[in-house]
Amino acid sequence: MKNVGIIGGTGYGAIELIRLLQTHEHMQLKKIISHSQHGEQIAAIYPHLTDFIEDPMQELQIESLKDEVDILFFATPAGIAKEIIPQLAGSTIQCIDLSGDLRLGSPSEYEYWYGKKAAPKQLIDKAVYGLSEIYPEQIKQATIISNPGCFPTSALLGLIPALEKKVILESGIVIDGKTGVSGAGRTPTAMTHYSETNENIKPYKIGKHQHIPEIEQYLTAQAKEPITVAFTTHLVPMTRGLICTMYGQLAKETSTEEVIKQYQSFYENHPFVRVREEGSFPTTKDVYASNYCDIGIHVDQRSNRIIIASVIDNLVKGAAGQAIQNVNLMNGWEETHGLHTIPVYP
Amino acid sequence: MKNVGIIGGTGYGAIELIRLLQTHEHMQLKKIISHSQHGEQIAAIYPHLTDFIEDPMQELQIESLKDEVDILFFATPAGIAKEIIPQLAGSTIQCIDLSGDLRLGSPSEYEYWYGKKAAPKQLIDKAVYGLSEIYPEQIKQATIISNPGCFPTSALLGLIPALEKKVILESGIVIDGKTGVSGAGRTPTAMTHYSETNENIKPYKIGKHQHIPEIEQYLTAQAKEPITVAFTTHLVPMTRGLICTMYGQLAKETSTEEVIKQYQSFYENHPFVRVREEGSFPTTKDVYASNYCDIGIHVDQRSNRIIIASVIDNLVKGAAGQAIQNVNLMNGWEETHGLHTIPVYP
Amino acid sequence: MKNVGIIGGTGYGAIELIRLLQTHEHMQLKKIISHSQHGEQIAAIYPHLTDFIEDPMQELQIESLKDEVDILFFATPAGIAKEIIPQLAGSTIQCIDLSGDLRLGSPSEYEYWYGKKAAPKQLIDKAVYGLSEIYPEQIKQATIISNPGCFPTSALLGLIPALEKKVILESGIVIDGKTGVSGAGRTPTAMTHYSETNENIKPYKIGKHQHIPEIEQYLTAQAKEPITVAFTTHLVPMTRGLICTMYGQLAKETSTEEVIKQYQSFYENHPFVRVREEGSFPTTKDVYASNYCDIGIHVDQRSNRIIIASVIDNLVKGAAGQAIQNVNLMNGWEETHGLHTIPVYP
Amino acid sequence: MKNVGIIGGTGYGAIELIRLLQTHEHMQLKKIISHSQHGEQIAAIYPHLTDFIEDPMQELQIESLKDEVDILFFATPAGIAKEIIPQLAGSTIQCIDLSGDLRLGSPSEYEYWYGKKAAPKQLIDKAVYGLSEIYPEQIKQATIISNPGCFPTSALLGLIPALEKKVILESGIVIDGKTGVSGAGRTPTAMTHYSETNENIKPYKIGKHQHIPEIEQYLTAQAKEPITVAFTTHLVPMTRGLICTMYGQLAKETSTEEVIKQYQSFYENHPFVRVREEGSFPTTKDVYASNYCDIGIHVDQRSNRIIIASVIDNLVKGAAGQAIQNVNLMNGWEETHGLHTIPVYP
Repeated sequence: MKNVGIIGGTGYGAIELIRLLQTHEHMQLKKIISHSQHGEQIAAIYPHLTDFIEDPMQELQIESLKDEVDILFFATPAGIAKEIIPQLAGSTIQCIDLSGDLRLGSPSEYEYWYGKKAAPKQLIDKAVYGLSEIYPEQIKQATIISNPGCFPTSALLGLIPALEKKVILESGIVIDGKTGVSGAGRTPTAMTHYSETNENIKPYKIGKHQHIPEIEQYLTAQAKEPITVAFTTHLVPMTRGLICTMYGQLAKETSTEEVIKQYQSFYENHPFVRVREEGSFPTTKDVYASNYCDIGIHVDQRSNRIIIASVIDNLVKGAAGQAIQNVNLMNGWEETHGLHTIPVYP
Repeated sequence: MKNVGIIGGTGYGAIELIRLLQTHEHMQLKKIISHSQHGEQIAAIYPHLTDFIEDPMQELQIESLKDEVDILFFATPAGIAKEIIPQLAGSTIQCIDLSGDLRLGSPSEYEYWYGKKAAPKQLIDKAVYGLSEIYPEQIKQATIISNPGCFPTSALLGLIPALEKKVILESGIVIDGKTGVSGAGRTPTAMTHYSETNENIKPYKIGKHQHIPEIEQYLTAQAKEPITVAFTTHLVPMTRGLICTMYGQLAKETSTEEVIKQYQSFYENHPFVRVREEGSFPTTKDVYASNYCDIGIHVDQRSNRIIIASVIDNLVKGAAGQAIQNVNLMNGWEETHGLHTIPVYP
Repeated sequence: MKNVGIIGGTGYGAIELIRLLQTHEHMQLKKIISHSQHGEQIAAIYPHLTDFIEDPMQELQIESLKDEVDILFFATPAGIAKEIIPQLAGSTIQCIDLSGDLRLGSPSEYEYWYGKKAAPKQLIDKAVYGLSEIYPEQIKQATIISNPGCFPTSALLGLIPALEKKVILESGIVIDGKTGVSGAGRTPTAMTHYSETNENIKPYKIGKHQHIPEIEQYLTAQAKEPITVAFTTHLVPMTRGLICTMYGQLAKETSTEEVIKQYQSFYENHPFVRVREEGSFPTTKDVYASNYCDIGIHVDQRSNRIIIASVIDNLVKGAAGQAIQNVNLMNGWEETHGLHTIPVYP
Repeated sequence: MKNVGIIGGTGYGAIELIRLLQTHEHMQLKKIISHSQHGEQIAAIYPHLTDFIEDPMQELQIESLKDEVDILFFATPAGIAKEIIPQLAGSTIQCIDLSGDLRLGSPSEYEYWYGKKAAPKQLIDKAVYGLSEIYPEQIKQATIISNPGCFPTSALLGLIPALEKKVILESGIVIDGKTGVSGAGRTPTAMTHYSETNENIKPYKIGKHQHIPEIEQYLTAQAKEPITVAFTTHLVPMTRGLICTMYGQLAKETSTEEVIKQYQSFYENHPFVRVREEGSFPTTKDVYASNYCDIGIHVDQRSNRIIIASVIDNLVKGAAGQAIQNVNLMNGWEETHGLHTIPVYP
């Protein structure tokens, strides 16, 4: 049984980690660390947690952490993990960073897109990008995981097989992302105010979303040549769920059936990706509150394009669930441990 | 490990049973029986179940059932369970009826409210009303459980302690119920059509709801004198969740604090009922996808009334979850087995 | 053509006034006054208003106001109207206060429920309570209108005929209120954060809502003896719409049909109240974006109670629409002018 | 004052026509014709219409129609208008077909995409495609209007200026459409069942949507060479509102600012299209219940693409509103008559 700490205890990422850890048999939650609300009971803020967590939230104390936890999740805003992880040097704590601090290989790219000072290049290089299905071997060796963003998880799982199988060209990729509102976090803003978000679709951060360089970096790594994408994001009136609808130019003649077979073979040993049969497209609710990524594919002969839709729960496979999946891999536990649950439906 | 069958395999009650049984260590799902869609894979209807259920749904065959299952859940429309249960006589199958067939003690009451022929009185009398926190001892001895309705579960758990502790008078009880749309089941109707249900609150079945006599019957049993209630139901634009806001006349001088203490003591050994501290009221999302019933209380000195709000997830504590809780009790397993999970939030 | 000003230009009340005034032929909007954002174009904040408003918002300047506007709407938070209206003394400006400043006759009651200093008693006494269907004659004579709250509008229109016709007793009235989120205004808060409000029903301000004394004051005035009510409010996941479900003890033997006739007769000359036939209950969407109040009635013989449901759009009949209806009455225009529009459905 | 009839009286298109006609000063609604429910009061089906419509719905009688109405709206399912319009030959009735019967120039294309027998080619040729901003001169001369589909309205208004100004290439256009559920009509189906549509995004009819050939036909007409597009549609959990997010390959070097200027100039005399300034993108709620089409533009230098978002209310500019706009044009009335109203917000 490993001891677990969570930093950033009152955000949605932390809350979802707490929910998922509750049924995990190899990890026990020891410490919830909150900068702003230490000393408080988390159930005072989140009454749904009543009777589940005994200890109040705590202040960050690096030295005692080293003795008390084996695994540390960073469910923190941008800029925190990069400060704390170096202070843990010398310990054997496994660090999983759910923020974007360590996702971009280039510090200057980070600074351009995030508008913040980047982590030291050395730290970035030490972190492994935790896209579990694509980099399982590296993850097994890692001590620091940079957990992928929600849109990149959906987009990369949807596109990488097509690139790998040379189904699509590297140029002309379009990714139209749509997400539920929980991805915007817990701080109330005009953007997430119920009366203006309900019964509304809002395109946002067009051309400016920090997930653009993250997607491009890993597509480029896959294709081994520079890929740029047209990527947009839309806020949709629902709490959980995310879909990327993706469009690629066909590189050769093929059929929906053939591409589906290629995808199914690509994900054969990856239980959390489910590829739909011809004629069926996934909806976000098909993966609600679960760690699944469901993928639908249509080869559009008329426009010589492939259309791929990839759905996840942004808080699970797009954050806390994938983080636990990575910890499972890092520790040699069954990859699905604690995550093999049926989506909540309806 | 007990073998389980579900009859009525394509409704929401069945789907939720399947979800909850997936992590239950003493039950394994052997058979999903569907009258209308036997022979089909359930994942063809509910893609979120992909990779979870191997066998296709089956037709009902009484004789083979007797050999194959130990526990049988009826997630069926009104009128089915009362026909099938008698045919299982002689077997040791534990029957849990999620429909209303066996809930009303009086066949004539049933016929008045349900507009259908009642079950034989003998069958009704053999069934135990599965309100787990109130009738645990009877449930432990039962072989047939009549699982409570969603509104009655919420209302009775909210009112019975106040009656038992003589906090409120028997007369003048008002229950204002509000439910998410999943309670109306899976058949598309004008009532549940998205465009007319969204951004709308609909009072429905005013004065005619079949949960009225169910609530009155068990309140009357508790008070040992006839109780009638004013009860209304409202459809609210959300999928899951149910709240009863209840109003009773104070029988004596008391305070919010005192009544809360009485409730907390009443539910001391019942982990699925959480009574809130003074000043805090539960919201339906606090119990989303979980088996909890959260209760808030306010003694309104000005109007000499008590206000009690009781929230549940209509598909869990109001249906499938309580059904499993009852099976846990019947078999001497831990009451919370398979149900001790944190609500999905947000 | 009268000139109109609105103070509090960026709240939802103001926005709805602007929408409704656009098609009003006897009023033209001259000035939008905003304390916090004067100098800005309102369409920069509310892009849906693009091309409708030319002038930027302005700072409040009492003296110039007197020359420029004939009618002034206060769509302001509590505490503002009571400061400004006295400064307009001597002018002939008609003042319509949509806030609660002048609704309670007793300054000490105001201070208890609002937690703020009350308006001078003299000012309170000069204001007429603008419940258009109940006090039309007083409104016609008024220069200062205290526009009713959203819940009181729904509750009073639903209950006053029953009291007036002696259908119900004065004691034992229960009002269960449910509202869309726009009633909470435009400031983002945890209470109105999409991810926590969606798919959720939240009881709030139980026992503490400032509409309690407002409802009681006008019921008491009607009954000519003190009435207290048990009143609760619930936030429901929708933007617009409000329903009060009300329960009263029958004062005499009667029938649903008979009471409906009494209500229809009571509202015969009041086009904005529509009383439903027996067996039909209104839903909030039936009055969406319109000035209607629809009422459904059921006499529940079993519990000796009457059940009344009264629905409005909280921003129209519950705020801006009723304000314009009052101005129509004050100026001798057709009561329905600018408001005789079909609800937006679906 | 012209007399108006509506065929297909109980669908959402008809309901929205009724709402908009209520304030139109040159048209009065004479006849609502319903095949399935003639003889009934429309308010019995749609209580929000109580007090607005006196006469019951009527059966279709061609001969009397000719005497009684000047303008006839077909808010009918596919296949009806093409049967009825020829029977009106010889009359001067202006026919506006809101269905897809007359939208595709090629009968064989129609039969492929709609799976129904096409209208006679002669009838198709007589109808003018009622995209008001693009074909105003032809509309002014027309007696038969084929009113555009909801997605084509949004997509064509968003793309045509870019093609016309040679901003984008003809090849490689991607259109990602998202719509509220009212576009699916009033018949309850599994697709529009609340519990499965709420908190969900559903891609649907991928590669098979009948709006694909409609969009391609008019883009092709504009570009004067064959254009194919990759077009997808998604059902989003809201009632009204539609957005097309569109991606085109830049044909030349340009900037966001420059393209916005070109669009603003293109739509200079078209009050219902509002082009946003740089950095601002429209949301569907910005045009709720109104006839506006709001457009946002971003030139994405990185991917050498332009991103255009175009939002409408699918029932207004995407159906009933544009139909009335076309009638205004046909009759020489002010184009905005009866439609110059502020969107309902929030």
